[in-house]
Amino acid sequence: MAEGQVRVLVLSGPNLNLLGEREPDVYGTDTLEAIHERLRRRAAALGAEAECRQHNGEGELIDALHAARGRTAGVVFNPGAYAHTSYALRDAVAAVSLPVVEVHLSNVYAREPFRRRSVIAPACRGTIVGLGAMGYELALEAVVRLARESGGG
Amino acid sequence: MAEGQVRVLVLSGPNLNLLGEREPDVYGTDTLEAIHERLRRRAAALGAEAECRQHNGEGELIDALHAARGRTAGVVFNPGAYAHTSYALRDAVAAVSLPVVEVHLSNVYAREPFRRRSVIAPACRGTIVGLGAMGYELALEAVVRLARESGGG
Amino acid sequence: MAEGQVRVLVLSGPNLNLLGEREPDVYGTDTLEAIHERLRRRAAALGAEAECRQHNGEGELIDALHAARGRTAGVVFNPGAYAHTSYALRDAVAAVSLPVVEVHLSNVYAREPFRRRSVIAPACRGTIVGLGAMGYELALEAVVRLARESGGG
Amino acid sequence: MAEGQVRVLVLSGPNLNLLGEREPDVYGTDTLEAIHERLRRRAAALGAEAECRQHNGEGELIDALHAARGRTAGVVFNPGAYAHTSYALRDAVAAVSLPVVEVHLSNVYAREPFRRRSVIAPACRGTIVGLGAMGYELALEAVVRLARESGGG
Amino acid sequence: MAEGQVRVLVLSGPNLNLLGEREPDVYGTDTLEAIHERLRRRAAALGAEAECRQHNGEGELIDALHAARGRTAGVVFNPGAYAHTSYALRDAVAAVSLPVVEVHLSNVYAREPFRRRSVIAPACRGTIVGLGAMGYELALEAVVRLARESGGG
Amino acid sequence: MAEGQVRVLVLSGPNLNLLGEREPDVYGTDTLEAIHERLRRRAAALGAEAECRQHNGEGELIDALHAARGRTAGVVFNPGAYAHTSYALRDAVAAVSLPVVEVHLSNVYAREPFRRRSVIAPACRGTIVGLGAMGYELALEAVVRLARESGGG
Amino acid sequence: MAEGQVRVLVLSGPNLNLLGEREPDVYGTDTLEAIHERLRRRAAALGAEAECRQHNGEGELIDALHAARGRTAGVVFNPGAYAHTSYALRDAVAAVSLPVVEVHLSNVYAREPFRRRSVIAPACRGTIVGLGAMGYELALEAVVRLARESGGG
Amino acid sequence: MAEGQVRVLVLSGPNLNLLGEREPDVYGTDTLEAIHERLRRRAAALGAEAECRQHNGEGELIDALHAARGRTAGVVFNPGAYAHTSYALRDAVAAVSLPVVEVHLSNVYAREPFRRRSVIAPACRGTIVGLGAMGYELALEAVVRLARESGGG
Amino acid sequence: MAEGQVRVLVLSGPNLNLLGEREPDVYGTDTLEAIHERLRRRAAALGAEAECRQHNGEGELIDALHAARGRTAGVVFNPGAYAHTSYALRDAVAAVSLPVVEVHLSNVYAREPFRRRSVIAPACRGTIVGLGAMGYELALEAVVRLARESGGG
Amino acid sequence: MAEGQVRVLVLSGPNLNLLGEREPDVYGTDTLEAIHERLRRRAAALGAEAECRQHNGEGELIDALHAARGRTAGVVFNPGAYAHTSYALRDAVAAVSLPVVEVHLSNVYAREPFRRRSVIAPACRGTIVGLGAMGYELALEAVVRLARESGGG
Amino acid sequence: MAEGQVRVLVLSGPNLNLLGEREPDVYGTDTLEAIHERLRRRAAALGAEAECRQHNGEGELIDALHAARGRTAGVVFNPGAYAHTSYALRDAVAAVSLPVVEVHLSNVYAREPFRRRSVIAPACRGTIVGLGAMGYELALEAVVRLARESGGG
Amino acid sequence: MAEGQVRVLVLSGPNLNLLGEREPDVYGTDTLEAIHERLRRRAAALGAEAECRQHNGEGELIDALHAARGRTAGVVFNPGAYAHTSYALRDAVAAVSLPVVEVHLSNVYAREPFRRRSVIAPACRGTIVGLGAMGYELALEAVVRLARESGGG
Repeated sequence: MAEGQVRVLVLSGPNLNLLGEREPDVYGTDTLEAIHERLRRRAAALGAEAECRQHNGEGELIDALHAARGRTAGVVFNPGAYAHTSYALRDAVAAVSLPVVEVHLSNVYAREPFRRRSVIAPACRGTIVGLGAMGYELALEAVVRLARESGGG
Repeated sequence: MAEGQVRVLVLSGPNLNLLGEREPDVYGTDTLEAIHERLRRRAAALGAEAECRQHNGEGELIDALHAARGRTAGVVFNPGAYAHTSYALRDAVAAVSLPVVEVHLSNVYAREPFRRRSVIAPACRGTIVGLGAMGYELALEAVVRLARESGGG
Repeated sequence: MAEGQVRVLVLSGPNLNLLGEREPDVYGTDTLEAIHERLRRRAAALGAEAECRQHNGEGELIDALHAARGRTAGVVFNPGAYAHTSYALRDAVAAVSLPVVEVHLSNVYAREPFRRRSVIAPACRGTIVGLGAMGYELALEAVVRLARESGGG
Repeated sequence: MAEGQVRVLVLSGPNLNLLGEREPDVYGTDTLEAIHERLRRRAAALGAEAECRQHNGEGELIDALHAARGRTAGVVFNPGAYAHTSYALRDAVAAVSLPVVEVHLSNVYAREPFRRRSVIAPACRGTIVGLGAMGYELALEAVVRLARESGGG
Repeated sequence: MAEGQVRVLVLSGPNLNLLGEREPDVYGTDTLEAIHERLRRRAAALGAEAECRQHNGEGELIDALHAARGRTAGVVFNPGAYAHTSYALRDAVAAVSLPVVEVHLSNVYAREPFRRRSVIAPACRGTIVGLGAMGYELALEAVVRLARESGGG
Repeated sequence: MAEGQVRVLVLSGPNLNLLGEREPDVYGTDTLEAIHERLRRRAAALGAEAECRQHNGEGELIDALHAARGRTAGVVFNPGAYAHTSYALRDAVAAVSLPVVEVHLSNVYAREPFRRRSVIAPACRGTIVGLGAMGYELALEAVVRLARESGGG
Repeated sequence: MAEGQVRVLVLSGPNLNLLGEREPDVYGTDTLEAIHERLRRRAAALGAEAECRQHNGEGELIDALHAARGRTAGVVFNPGAYAHTSYALRDAVAAVSLPVVEVHLSNVYAREPFRRRSVIAPACRGTIVGLGAMGYELALEAVVRLARESGGG
Repeated sequence: MAEGQVRVLVLSGPNLNLLGEREPDVYGTDTLEAIHERLRRRAAALGAEAECRQHNGEGELIDALHAARGRTAGVVFNPGAYAHTSYALRDAVAAVSLPVVEVHLSNVYAREPFRRRSVIAPACRGTIVGLGAMGYELALEAVVRLARESGGG
Repeated sequence: MAEGQVRVLVLSGPNLNLLGEREPDVYGTDTLEAIHERLRRRAAALGAEAECRQHNGEGELIDALHAARGRTAGVVFNPGAYAHTSYALRDAVAAVSLPVVEVHLSNVYAREPFRRRSVIAPACRGTIVGLGAMGYELALEAVVRLARESGGG
Repeated sequence: MAEGQVRVLVLSGPNLNLLGEREPDVYGTDTLEAIHERLRRRAAALGAEAECRQHNGEGELIDALHAARGRTAGVVFNPGAYAHTSYALRDAVAAVSLPVVEVHLSNVYAREPFRRRSVIAPACRGTIVGLGAMGYELALEAVVRLARESGGG
Repeated sequence: MAEGQVRVLVLSGPNLNLLGEREPDVYGTDTLEAIHERLRRRAAALGAEAECRQHNGEGELIDALHAARGRTAGVVFNPGAYAHTSYALRDAVAAVSLPVVEVHLSNVYAREPFRRRSVIAPACRGTIVGLGAMGYELALEAVVRLARESGGG
Repeated sequence: MAEGQVRVLVLSGPNLNLLGEREPDVYGTDTLEAIHERLRRRAAALGAEAECRQHNGEGELIDALHAARGRTAGVVFNPGAYAHTSYALRDAVAAVSLPVVEVHLSNVYAREPFRRRSVIAPACRGTIVGLGAMGYELALEAVVRLARESGGG
């Protein structure tokens, strides 16, 4: 791929389809579609392309990560509540050998204890937490730069 | 909706499709279909309607809860073994903003330690445990009354 | 006893005498006497009889459970905060060989961690949590039906 | 009540009736009656009145706390070993809506691990530990001042 | 007291009044009264006297232990399920400065985990577990011998 | 079925479709298809038949186990990372009442702590760990022999 | 065997050969040989025979328990510090199918935390703790009576 | 020193310099200087002298405690958040051999779990918690009386 | 301040002065000064100003945070190893009432267990982990945007 | 050694000499000698030789593993209950640098919690659990194949 | 004994007979015999005598410690992996009343978690860890000096 | 540096400046200055030089370790109570890439549980515990020898 054509998968997990409607004091009032739109614009500004998907099922998220191999240069991944228990998603992240940056919208460290642990984080390159929709944007920039550093774009 | 038309989703999780065949000393000899039939009759007696579904997949259960928004006034929910680990279902329950009453057929407190903890319970209005198929019926009455109290039916 | 004469003990533990005055946002505004009155009416409607008592002392609650043997067909039991520590009450429930359904007014799973564990629950037939005074009523129905199933009324 | 007439309940729990005789190297040589006498004098000096009671039974202590509502402006409470396990007493303290200051004679933090935790403390206004009989006196002053601040005396 | 007149308190806790009726496969078919009768005979054979009491209330058991000071030379104590949680009874045992031997009828180490821990044991001279009613007899002999060794009889 | 016609389900879970590509130092260089082919040959040599499937979704694995009832005489099951958390799969294994032998390719006891625990193992007949693709073969032999012992083939 | 000929193995574990010399404030001043002599006399008085052995090695203690099968009617067993960790000795006790009573000289519940747990106790009939050499004697009586109850002598 | 000249160090730890500005709903609106002024007046009334200091650094607090030896008769010590982790401060308190009374303004038992444990408390004479600035005053009185009791003033 | 003049404190904790020399495979080869220089340039590009400091002492870091009040609009904070234990720094972050974004260079979730927990994170707005020096840059952008959103610049 | 001459040590630990007599519902009715005989036959069929030993002592098992170096090509090892605690045996397995496959007859994951953990497993190549005497046979095949793969036979 | 004749037992536990052959990157390339030789020379230089032994069996190590009483003035003890579990060896060390210094060749704190805890260390005078064979030498010097300080040589 | 000129930093942490005065039964009666003097003499005898420092502040200890790079060949480090919590000091030890030997005067394994864990030990070469001031001397010899082995002197 030419440098301007880095493609990044933006993958969101369970319940994130309800963003903007669900507990807005916790998760903000932006819909996921609005966030996706902003990410596509920012990707373009970075000379890249954002492919945005959301699934509620763990198996479908694994499939989506597998499918990212070869087709994209990295992943921005918000695993939602699967972050706390899904060793299968952790293995999928480890298996795809792409730079993956995990994102959580809310400050999970300031909420219930179970939210403080991501079993997926050790398999990711990095994690951005608590910065709302802006976290997706910063993660997108990070993945693009990591992909370019490793010659992926 | 008029008062006589409260619709309640009765949602059952993994392995409950085997009810009546699977470990009958633990779970009883009623099939799920027989229970559904009784619930529909009792709902009618309460001037309500029971919509009964079962899924083995976590993602499909999340989808079913999401779909209950707007269409139903509350949920009777037996999450089966997902109760012990699924923070994604807990978030889905919290997200739908309906009265949800959790049901477990067997007395989970008298079985293996892992069954004593429901991570979904904190997001529900209440929980009924150990009363077999009768638990579904009592939960149905509770949801109908809660829905009517809050003007939902 | 004839079927219409099932007698059920409704037994409440420490601090429940203050219901309606104590932390009404948690426990509601009904007084215990008002709940007892409703239970007596509902018992009558079920062709049964509710005998309602409250004690603050652990020893007195044990005595009351012992005294229920032979005289009643089952127990609706709200052990209050003794639920979290009283193995003596658990042993008393196990000793009396009657169907006992535990009730908690508030959703104990959504409160302090210590409230999530009832050491009495494993000795009971079932547990109803979080449904307020309605929980007593549903438990009463459950005990009456369980007593009749086992020929106790 | 006029300011000079703040009444404070001084309530002591199990085994404290043996003070002066029991393990004097841990608990000192003053009898409980001698401490009560000093407290009554100090209360008088503060323009208040100390009503002093001791019970070995958990239920009786709950009754005593309930009875303090309306009759007193606050409580100095030494729950003895019930401090480590009695959620029922904690609920009673929370229920009475009076300033309660917990007192322990010995430095419970320097003794067996189980003594380090008071499940009652979170429901109290404050705690005074390790200062012997003097702890009762300081707690009495604190309760009187807290009661006066909130207009209770 | 002359040697032949050692008096020993045999004190039993909650639910032991139901012995012989309650879960006989666990606790045997002897009633408590039958055991008391055997103990009185064995005490006589040892030139001693057994004073036998049972209480369901924690506070009453504390009172009974306090009352044993001065009047008896030692205590055989079956605290029942209070063994697992009652630091107040532990303090009472420590306070009375008499040889106390703890007895449990069943092998508490082969039952539920919570039964494996007695918080009272550290304050006792010894513990006899799992030997049924015979355990009371052996404990009686032990207390008589300990009392005589220390000149108590 | 005649003895030569024992059918065994070989079921593999999440990420195992990537075998041979994913972390080959941990999981070896054989593809899952190559392993399936070897298993079919070995099954034939044992006079049996191996039906081989792989799914990334937990719900689909439950469905596959349910479908094995009646159609097969036993299951070789590699639950992948679901082994560590899925009580729903454990319940499915318990529900199908067939001999199930769990397989893990790598020595999970020598890897991260979370991999040491299989919540599914207690419901299986046995477990084979750390022997790579050979583990599938040994498990296949075990299931065939167990099925024949119980008359299943 | 005739009733007068019940033979009981008295088996002591590591470091007990140093009794009387080792930490006498904890373990007393009697030598093991002196205790053995007293036990042989008491056995004779009970119409029984005590065979007394001590080993420091875990394997030798297992051998001794195995050898007790068929030759003796029960075992008084002080496993010393192996009590806290030896599942192999626990299995040996379970395997020999004889009444075994565990003895500890000191009150292990009042010492270091690791001494509070015997992994062997669940496989024994009962346990006697803290009564010094008298504990061996009481255990001997218990084993003789248990053996006779079950027709073993 | 003459009795009127007892000097007490009042030592406050990290972030207490922001008192009055920082989270006033938790810590009150008094500035530390205002509290110091009140303490100096109360000390004078007790015939004593209060020397008041605050440091954010752990090493400086250790130095201040060391320097109190010989110069003062006791310490009122609010270690702030160092209370939860600083074994070095605990050792310093133990090393100075003066009566030290620990103070916390807020009721640390009713806040985050980590605040419930003071590793310094076991080395202090006593602890006063939750009584706001009044806690400093009561601690000052306690230190003065303890110092006088031990002849220190 | 005018929008172009947002000042941000970039504060780094213990051992970060050795960056570039210390374990470069973990922390990279950039020196802290080089990172500071890049941050100052990026701040300028964002119309802001970065003030960069590093301290090894916990007390000095607390002082630096206190000093940021009023002078800066937010903080990028790498607390280094203090993240895992320093409740005093957490309190300081909470006390200054500014947006603080925590940064860790390495993926602390993939290292020793103690590095997985930041006690400071709950008091911060967000956290960026594992992205090396790029993490500082992204955090800087986040703080500038958060400051502007809240009108701080 | 020529390929037909692979020698494998089959080593069994404590209490396995009682196989067939001890708890046959758990461990089956085969004696260890019968199993050894079957293993010798199966080894011959594989062109190998099985050398079978059993010891109750931990030290003797360590000696046997040490002696296997140079003389055998691998080990089938049933450590019995030492599996749960013996780090010395784990170190011995690691020290001998041979392929070792651990075997447990019963499904240890479905029994007491302490049986779920083998501290030896991480040092072995693999583990076979719950398949009874058949497990020894499968392990023998595995060791022979592993030895041949690494050129050991 | 004259000063020049202090005899020190150097006792090594399981698997240390394989030193030099076993995992040389962890334990070094010196054989145990070579270390013993160096220790004998260094002992001579200190005017003392080193008696060197190694056993794989726990019981034999206990015997060796018992035999050291009276014959030697102290012990250098490398308990190998028994350090982590053997309370019997701890009791043996406590029983012999000699200065014992524990040695571990590798830095056990930087290896697997189970190696971090020595249950024997609390009964020893001191511990030397991580300094390879030099650790034995330093421990020898320490034991000789401790023995001379206490007049033992 | 010539071999005779190895310089070793001897660094002591909080409260060690009070040695000789503070709890002499635990820490001995030598002052730190006297120990320093002995170390300087022993260093000279080893052809080396000991540079001795003490700090109470964690930040100053980090600074001292940093400053040791280049100037010294190794460090004898007594971190005092910071050993139990300071990951920052651990990182500093890891960062300086010098042989560091940790020393504790008292047998920390025989004291309070919190003293048993040094978070710094994993980053050191070795640890010497419980041998009083002699421990410093032995550590000095170890560091000198380690430095010479690696060519550092």
